[in-house]
Amino acid sequence: MYNRLLLLPDLRELLDVSDVAGLAEFCEALHPAAVAEVLEGLEAAESWQVLSSCSPVRQAEIFSFIDLPDQLELVETVPREQFSRLIEEMAPDDRVDLLERLDPERVDNLLPMVAQAERRDIQRLLSFPEDSAGSIMTTEYASLPAETTVVEAIDLLRQQAPDRETIYYVYVIDEGRRLRGFISLRELILARPETRVDSIMERDVISVRVDDDQEEVAQRLARFDFIAIPVVDEQNQLVGIVTHDDAMDVAQEEADEDAYRSGAVVPLEDDYLSTPLVTLAWKRGGWLIVLLFAAVLTALALKSLKQDLDADALQWMALFIPLVLASGGNAGSQSATLIVRALAISQFGREESVRVLVRELVLAGFLGGGLAILSFLTAMWFVEATVPQAAVVGITVFLVVAMGTVTGAMLPLGFRRMGLDPALMSNPLIAAVVDVVGVVIYYNVARIVVAGG
Amino acid sequence: MYNRLLLLPDLRELLDVSDVAGLAEFCEALHPAAVAEVLEGLEAAESWQVLSSCSPVRQAEIFSFIDLPDQLELVETVPREQFSRLIEEMAPDDRVDLLERLDPERVDNLLPMVAQAERRDIQRLLSFPEDSAGSIMTTEYASLPAETTVVEAIDLLRQQAPDRETIYYVYVIDEGRRLRGFISLRELILARPETRVDSIMERDVISVRVDDDQEEVAQRLARFDFIAIPVVDEQNQLVGIVTHDDAMDVAQEEADEDAYRSGAVVPLEDDYLSTPLVTLAWKRGGWLIVLLFAAVLTALALKSLKQDLDADALQWMALFIPLVLASGGNAGSQSATLIVRALAISQFGREESVRVLVRELVLAGFLGGGLAILSFLTAMWFVEATVPQAAVVGITVFLVVAMGTVTGAMLPLGFRRMGLDPALMSNPLIAAVVDVVGVVIYYNVARIVVAGG
Repeated sequence: MYNRLLLLPDLRELLDVSDVAGLAEFCEALHPAAVAEVLEGLEAAESWQVLSSCSPVRQAEIFSFIDLPDQLELVETVPREQFSRLIEEMAPDDRVDLLERLDPERVDNLLPMVAQAERRDIQRLLSFPEDSAGSIMTTEYASLPAETTVVEAIDLLRQQAPDRETIYYVYVIDEGRRLRGFISLRELILARPETRVDSIMERDVISVRVDDDQEEVAQRLARFDFIAIPVVDEQNQLVGIVTHDDAMDVAQEEADEDAYRSGAVVPLEDDYLSTPLVTLAWKRGGWLIVLLFAAVLTALALKSLKQDLDADALQWMALFIPLVLASGGNAGSQSATLIVRALAISQFGREESVRVLVRELVLAGFLGGGLAILSFLTAMWFVEATVPQAAVVGITVFLVVAMGTVTGAMLPLGFRRMGLDPALMSNPLIAAVVDVVGVVIYYNVARIVVAGG
Repeated sequence: MYNRLLLLPDLRELLDVSDVAGLAEFCEALHPAAVAEVLEGLEAAESWQVLSSCSPVRQAEIFSFIDLPDQLELVETVPREQFSRLIEEMAPDDRVDLLERLDPERVDNLLPMVAQAERRDIQRLLSFPEDSAGSIMTTEYASLPAETTVVEAIDLLRQQAPDRETIYYVYVIDEGRRLRGFISLRELILARPETRVDSIMERDVISVRVDDDQEEVAQRLARFDFIAIPVVDEQNQLVGIVTHDDAMDVAQEEADEDAYRSGAVVPLEDDYLSTPLVTLAWKRGGWLIVLLFAAVLTALALKSLKQDLDADALQWMALFIPLVLASGGNAGSQSATLIVRALAISQFGREESVRVLVRELVLAGFLGGGLAILSFLTAMWFVEATVPQAAVVGITVFLVVAMGTVTGAMLPLGFRRMGLDPALMSNPLIAAVVDVVGVVIYYNVARIVVAGG
């Protein structure tokens, strides 16, 4: 942590004596993100007292580095007029993130106070669907006409610099704002001053569409190691850019979502400790209920199957129910985890799904065989099962592990084919499916081996 | 995908007629990452034929965008002399990533052919422990002495530009190479030409130590929205920088690792389809065996507990074994997922662990209570259990879900306290622990309620 605990007492002292100049100096001396980190240790009203002491530009910079849940708490204490000023100074993408999470009535109240240019920009960005490139892009990019010379271009960038998210990547556009080329500031600095930009620019510009999914945007930016990627509309008009820091946030968010889903939790919007307990209970309870009903199916299957077996068989078989079902569930979790993760980072296209299934089938044989032998032996040695009993366990483990492995791989692939998020097929849900089929396998193997059919 | 399939036939035609000029043009026309993507569709020898047609600088650029497993395959076909040239041209961090994965004997054979400056740089970077800041940094950063003026600085950057990873962030160092300040190219461009750099630079530079963990480096860079973060040694001497694209790769890698661990798979080094089946079988089989032995414990517990209950009780109880154990395991998976994820992005410090446990205890009550009522009702309605039987199921579900929730939260926190990766406590392992305790709870509740103690 960046000196945070060391700076807090000093800051409190400045607050106690309402030393506005001191507070302003504090805000300017540190990196805005470091100031934001220190503010985490204060109450919302105190944080605002610190922020209101510094210049509007700095205020907005620091504010943007505060976590969204804390931003929401903070703005509760900010008077409307100052809030509208803050909104005007914030980067377009950051302020839209905030406004999206605010009470719509509050936004309606606030917008008329925001300057017209910013207001129009906000309304435009708010209109893009959540999780689209449009919803994460900023409209503050640097651009140039094609006929500019290098020396003119650098001069133009100098003028644009104060209110652009980045001036390191510059986009060349025509009169219709259509994206024609790209040049980096590095190339501009290295070029001869009188050269025309369109003679040295990259013409084959890699861009994303405004309605592309944010995950795809992040992946593409990462693949090309870009600082920013341009966003165009269906007429190839430049409408914004997505910068590397926002792409990193998206990648983090998507990894979080996948992790939550694989653990059967509806993804959280805030971080764990900021999420109210009632919300957490709902986001977990829903899945637990679904899984409970799946488990009831297993109970029903067990009930109808037990009629085929005698009381003795049922007694020793009960001992191994957790073992055979866990083996299948674990094998399924492993496959699903590997496939979901591979799909998340687009390691293979649809056409490679067949190859994946073949691989998983081979593994199903390997892993099922190995575990079958081990469970046969452990059933005999540790649980003192008879040879036929241990054989039932071994054969069942082979079949259940094989079935679990293939199911775990197929369900996420099937979900994707249906256009759904492969991660929706959480590991516990796969385990629940494997459980139902698992008991059917177990009891039928027992019937055939022990009862002789 | 970026036109990849469309370009492949053209490329094959150029290869067939060995059109070196055409191949060189192909390499220059597209973004290096796009060329790398097209090369994925070719055999290693063909890829090298394409690459060897273009300039050494471009060759290294394109090569760096090829995935590491494909790089390893490709270099098998490259003659030693050309390989050493390629190594010289590659960025320091990229070539070290490659050399780390090569056969050490091959590296020893190769290094004497690499120019001395590069060789020393390679040996230095190879000496840093895996997963440290030193192992992911590049030594090609832009730096300036403090007394430079702005106009001199831009001129110096122009000279440094061709072989620096970035010139947008410039580090100010003293004669002892100690890090004294930081300035961005944007600020240099906006400043008056005759200003001295040390009068406008940021003096409070946010940096990381060369032995810091790569995950921490990525988090810090992301937190501050940097394009690059400087890496210093214990004397505060600047030794390298980590750029945003490498930080993003690290974040991706760490998210992958956590996902694999939570699904009980030993993290893969390559992507799923490039990992040999034997490796996959080992990485999965090891955990499956551990989990099988845990399941044997459950079987042993069931065996010793059944002596206290009569045959009738054992028969109906067997029906609900999967249900009660799955409820506990699922609740445990949820808690563990939430806590592991929160720890991965450092949402709370050690001191907040108590708050986490209190939250999980409250949730344990909530979720356990809700599921207990539901399982009581479903046991009666669907599985036609008697009231005392359904009561045993309900009470057990309450206790097992509560126990699972708390266990799922505590085990990752405990792992962290012991200095281990919290994600090592995978969901299936938590489920296995919950299973053993779960059957003990189940049979004891049954003994007390049905048999009256």
